[in-house]
Amino acid sequence: MGFLDKVLSASRGSRSLLCIGLDPDPELMPRMDVFAFNKAIIDATSDLVCAYKPNLAFYEALGLGGLEAMKRTLEYIPKAIPTIGDAKRGDIGNTARAYARALFEVFGFDAATVNPYLGHDSVEPFLSYSDKGIFILCKTSNPGAADFQEARCGRRRLYELVAEKARAWNTSGNVGLVMGATYPEELRRVRKLCPNMPLLIPGIGAQGGDLALTVRYGVDVHGERAIIVSSRQILYASRGDDFALAARREALKLRDTINRLIAI
Amino acid sequence: MGFLDKVLSASRGSRSLLCIGLDPDPELMPRMDVFAFNKAIIDATSDLVCAYKPNLAFYEALGLGGLEAMKRTLEYIPKAIPTIGDAKRGDIGNTARAYARALFEVFGFDAATVNPYLGHDSVEPFLSYSDKGIFILCKTSNPGAADFQEARCGRRRLYELVAEKARAWNTSGNVGLVMGATYPEELRRVRKLCPNMPLLIPGIGAQGGDLALTVRYGVDVHGERAIIVSSRQILYASRGDDFALAARREALKLRDTINRLIAI
Repeated sequence: MGFLDKVLSASRGSRSLLCIGLDPDPELMPRMDVFAFNKAIIDATSDLVCAYKPNLAFYEALGLGGLEAMKRTLEYIPKAIPTIGDAKRGDIGNTARAYARALFEVFGFDAATVNPYLGHDSVEPFLSYSDKGIFILCKTSNPGAADFQEARCGRRRLYELVAEKARAWNTSGNVGLVMGATYPEELRRVRKLCPNMPLLIPGIGAQGGDLALTVRYGVDVHGERAIIVSSRQILYASRGDDFALAARREALKLRDTINRLIAI
Repeated sequence: MGFLDKVLSASRGSRSLLCIGLDPDPELMPRMDVFAFNKAIIDATSDLVCAYKPNLAFYEALGLGGLEAMKRTLEYIPKAIPTIGDAKRGDIGNTARAYARALFEVFGFDAATVNPYLGHDSVEPFLSYSDKGIFILCKTSNPGAADFQEARCGRRRLYELVAEKARAWNTSGNVGLVMGATYPEELRRVRKLCPNMPLLIPGIGAQGGDLALTVRYGVDVHGERAIIVSSRQILYASRGDDFALAARREALKLRDTINRLIAI
């Protein structure tokens, strides 16, 4: 089963567009082992999500032990739930091949985020894994997104050029885009440009993205193919012993709010 | 000592602008342990280089054992020779902080490459390590560089906009740019825009960049501040037992050719 089918199936099974970002931050989490923390979060939320998205930065910052915890986390996540390796890699052809191998074969992610700045041959080695999902950064959720992604390139902005290229590169149907929830107007435009692509949408919660607009502009005509990410808001809902229960409560609330917004 | 001073000092000590890319590829290297391979290359070339540049992709592709080998390699490189972590990371503020911590504190690189696509807050956590070097991708050496980096943004190309922003962000004097040797005209322009910045220049050798033009356009007015990378051409000069000797021969030849070209 390809990534898109896997995510649609998981999403329908849990009636959820919610993806939890598994980003363990020792400054915010309870004092405990990272794998044990992730395991508790997964146990508490696996029936409420369409995907899990570990961001590699948080594991790399903990050294080899952190990456070992990420590997164990990936092995622990139920096979029916797709995993997105948020790595934002981008390098020249032969090096990109090594990154794709690391993410898809060594760690075994079902999908990965990639940075488009180096162009087609930097993305192609990822695309060639036709059963994996590739989310190309388009308009990211952060303030700095304006610096280059908003640059006017002729009649369009750079992020629109990226969306167009991504569409052209999508010959195997495994391409998606990363669109920050903090820029709803851009989300609306990109959904129009790419009506069938899965969109990975971070930026609600701590980053302040508007959930109602995110849902309205992010989903496809069937109310699907938007993968709405929440991380800190769920993982750190409580710093006490009840962190997993609090995470479940937040995830449930968010899933149900999203579903109500789809129904409007 | 800041990164720029460290690289100038190493460069003067070895009379070399050559940086060896430590990119172990099991398909090209002799059948042996990665750390042992790197150690032999370092032993054979450490008097001939201004820096070593491990690309993280090649280690990640080998799993945790590969990253362990990278860690040991970094510990083994003589302290006077600066190390550049070629990671091309780029993520939103709080995540970029985790990447910077991983590269500078966990692995202990003296410098890192970063991807500018996410803008200022994705680069800032790296810049705040004022004694470290930050090489921002500008015009990369690969064919796909044309896809976005060459996009016309008003009167300039995107890579020129990146160079201008990099110059503006360089308040601590620790910023450099990655400029592919395969685009000499762009290299000339960027050297003019940023006369004092260190330029990290991959793309000679296997990728076909013209060495004479690279040297002519890449160095500053003193014939310095160009860090010219060679990887495959040196590492895989021989696949036999004499690989380290062959690597030394190639490195010596390349260093001396570069020096002759500077003197012209």
